[in-house]
Amino acid sequence: MPLRLDARAPGFAEAFAALVADRREEDAGVSADVARIIAEVRARGYAAVAELTARFDGVDLAAGGIEIGRDERAAAAARVTPETRAALHLAADRIGMFHVEQLPKGHDAVDGSGIRAGWRWTPVERAGLYVPGGRAAYPSSVLMNALPAKVAGVRELVMVTPTPGGELNPLVMLAAEIAGVDRVFRIGGAQAVAALAYGVAPVPACDVIVGPGNAWVAEAKRQLYGVVGIDMVAGPSEILVIADASADPAHVAADLLSQAEHDPVAQSILITDSATLAGAVAAEVERLLPGLASAATARASWARFGTIITVADIMDTVPLADALAAEHLELMLADPEPLFRAIRHAGSIFLGHRTPEAIGDYLGGPNHVLPTGRRARFASGLGVLNFMKRTTFLDSSRGFDAVADAAATLADAEGLPAHALSVRIRS
Amino acid sequence: MPLRLDARAPGFAEAFAALVADRREEDAGVSADVARIIAEVRARGYAAVAELTARFDGVDLAAGGIEIGRDERAAAAARVTPETRAALHLAADRIGMFHVEQLPKGHDAVDGSGIRAGWRWTPVERAGLYVPGGRAAYPSSVLMNALPAKVAGVRELVMVTPTPGGELNPLVMLAAEIAGVDRVFRIGGAQAVAALAYGVAPVPACDVIVGPGNAWVAEAKRQLYGVVGIDMVAGPSEILVIADASADPAHVAADLLSQAEHDPVAQSILITDSATLAGAVAAEVERLLPGLASAATARASWARFGTIITVADIMDTVPLADALAAEHLELMLADPEPLFRAIRHAGSIFLGHRTPEAIGDYLGGPNHVLPTGRRARFASGLGVLNFMKRTTFLDSSRGFDAVADAAATLADAEGLPAHALSVRIRS
Repeated sequence: MPLRLDARAPGFAEAFAALVADRREEDAGVSADVARIIAEVRARGYAAVAELTARFDGVDLAAGGIEIGRDERAAAAARVTPETRAALHLAADRIGMFHVEQLPKGHDAVDGSGIRAGWRWTPVERAGLYVPGGRAAYPSSVLMNALPAKVAGVRELVMVTPTPGGELNPLVMLAAEIAGVDRVFRIGGAQAVAALAYGVAPVPACDVIVGPGNAWVAEAKRQLYGVVGIDMVAGPSEILVIADASADPAHVAADLLSQAEHDPVAQSILITDSATLAGAVAAEVERLLPGLASAATARASWARFGTIITVADIMDTVPLADALAAEHLELMLADPEPLFRAIRHAGSIFLGHRTPEAIGDYLGGPNHVLPTGRRARFASGLGVLNFMKRTTFLDSSRGFDAVADAAATLADAEGLPAHALSVRIRS
Repeated sequence: MPLRLDARAPGFAEAFAALVADRREEDAGVSADVARIIAEVRARGYAAVAELTARFDGVDLAAGGIEIGRDERAAAAARVTPETRAALHLAADRIGMFHVEQLPKGHDAVDGSGIRAGWRWTPVERAGLYVPGGRAAYPSSVLMNALPAKVAGVRELVMVTPTPGGELNPLVMLAAEIAGVDRVFRIGGAQAVAALAYGVAPVPACDVIVGPGNAWVAEAKRQLYGVVGIDMVAGPSEILVIADASADPAHVAADLLSQAEHDPVAQSILITDSATLAGAVAAEVERLLPGLASAATARASWARFGTIITVADIMDTVPLADALAAEHLELMLADPEPLFRAIRHAGSIFLGHRTPEAIGDYLGGPNHVLPTGRRARFASGLGVLNFMKRTTFLDSSRGFDAVADAAATLADAEGLPAHALSVRIRS
């Protein structure tokens, strides 16, 4: 049974605060393990990666080579049906079009003193993309992680993916091909992340590492943050649906379940001003669940983390939505605009009755890699900027005299005599 | 004696690779200490902060209160001389003007299928600014960290600074006043960072924490990355000066020393195509050093990490500069434009003979909080975007039919039936 809260009931503030505080993130206790693996890879390079791959994935790199060649990738990709292939191409086109708009502009201007200042954006040289093996290997994630890097102009895009049992995932190989991934290596786990960060020939060192993974992979990225850039610290996924009486309860239920089916610790929350809708959605969830192949996972998530909140007025949801800062926010309202304008914290917003999150997950255009666990308060979804950096510049050849005295005064005040000297020596 | 390398000499590639690999960052071994302090603050709140402040700073928070009130701050700020006050105002004006240009634009467009997609940028609610106590308390850092937050539109800006001995730094208090810092608390160390991250009344929880600090502060920020946003993982500072025969050796020497005086592990590197200049700069460094109050620090840095590299042709410096990806890059060249266009990795670039780094440190406009230790390969300096986040949005109310089948096909392919259902139920 999902949690039921009424914003008008006594004790709501405390119950809601507890909901906000629970990020559903447990320390997996893998920190020391991961630190050891990273140190091993750093110290012993390829030999360590090969040993760990044999141990964890049962794959002998000496047999097939660490790199998955173009022919092997193409052979796997060829097994995808034409219908799915066309859908992936449509998704790639739409995601690419959206992200092109994110390319940032530089700035270069001369001010009234004659001083020139500005910045330019340039892509990183090489990006690494982690793709999990097994059930969680989603081709849509390959597109969402790889395409912003390509749009940014990254020179080389390197993918790693574990192949337990030696099997390649045809969908993943096709998505990599469509997205323009340059090289693919059959390694996974913390050892693959370490290989991407430090470079373990033939795996080249990458400047940025992105992509989803299990607890070991996530912890490896966290530990290597600063050695390389990473996309984000990710936790379990979540959706917040805000709906009024105009929403179809079955549609709301399907959307809540589409989040719940990801993971037993995923979270689906409905906030509505309609008690009738609240009841109908709860009933629809129960009606739809048995028909889903993912029912066990979805039911576990819904029972443990599912939440339905009723409010007196739909505008009362604004502070609740801002506090939850949900990864995905659906506004299934007769008129979503007022709430859309008022809510400030969310990873991505889906407007109206015919915009289920799944459209955005696959091919709406916006990225589906989004901040979880209330991190939308301060973090953005993945985008082109994750693969670029800004270099500022300054030229005070003209205008030096207008600022030199003040700069030297501040250097004196801070007790930095060589700073002051470097200015006064030019005066 | 600085390291001398000649790009034409045998063994240069190896020596240069070693230079690039040495980030001058040593594990301070404070990781477990910091984890303990964070856990303490999280578990026991104010009591833990008060105990740790008494122990490390010798300050009794019960006596003067944890918050530094407006009157107390104003009284300290009033002790700054008019000349320095005017210089700080000029700096704030110029830094503010530069950062206003960084305010990002949103996007909102309807494509050919009728699907609306875009994003908007919004500021975080509250930012926390760490300001070190003692010698490293620089008013310029207060401006550089606080002003981008104010420009971004952050609602509340909170500063923490340790006051060992109870003394307030007048310059820091004035800079905070000029930059519009809202509240100031007299706490420091890892305990202050933890208080900002989790909120320890009356210290409010912040969404982003920025600012320099010692090894404990830096490690606390690293450990809390993900709970909050942070500016960056920072290491020792560095400068790379690329100069040709047109440069004045004394100017080059002063600039190298302005970096070296910061820290014994700071690094100053000169690359030049003029053996004459190389020799003259080395001599000028020795000539200038004795006159500096910071000579001991600057000499230690220059002796241990100072480096002079000679190359055959000035354009040969491009790959070297990109590999070093220096925090600060000065181009002291008769014509800096060709190198300026060719070099891709640097934190901030200073063009021409009359743009010493110190102008940028204080009031050129660009931020002086920059990626160190080769991180300019993937990271940017501090800016307005550090205090904002992008929320994407999608509306497929119109255009749904153009993409629904493809989305459902991909959901099927990924084995996510509720995703497929959420699309098909609307078809």
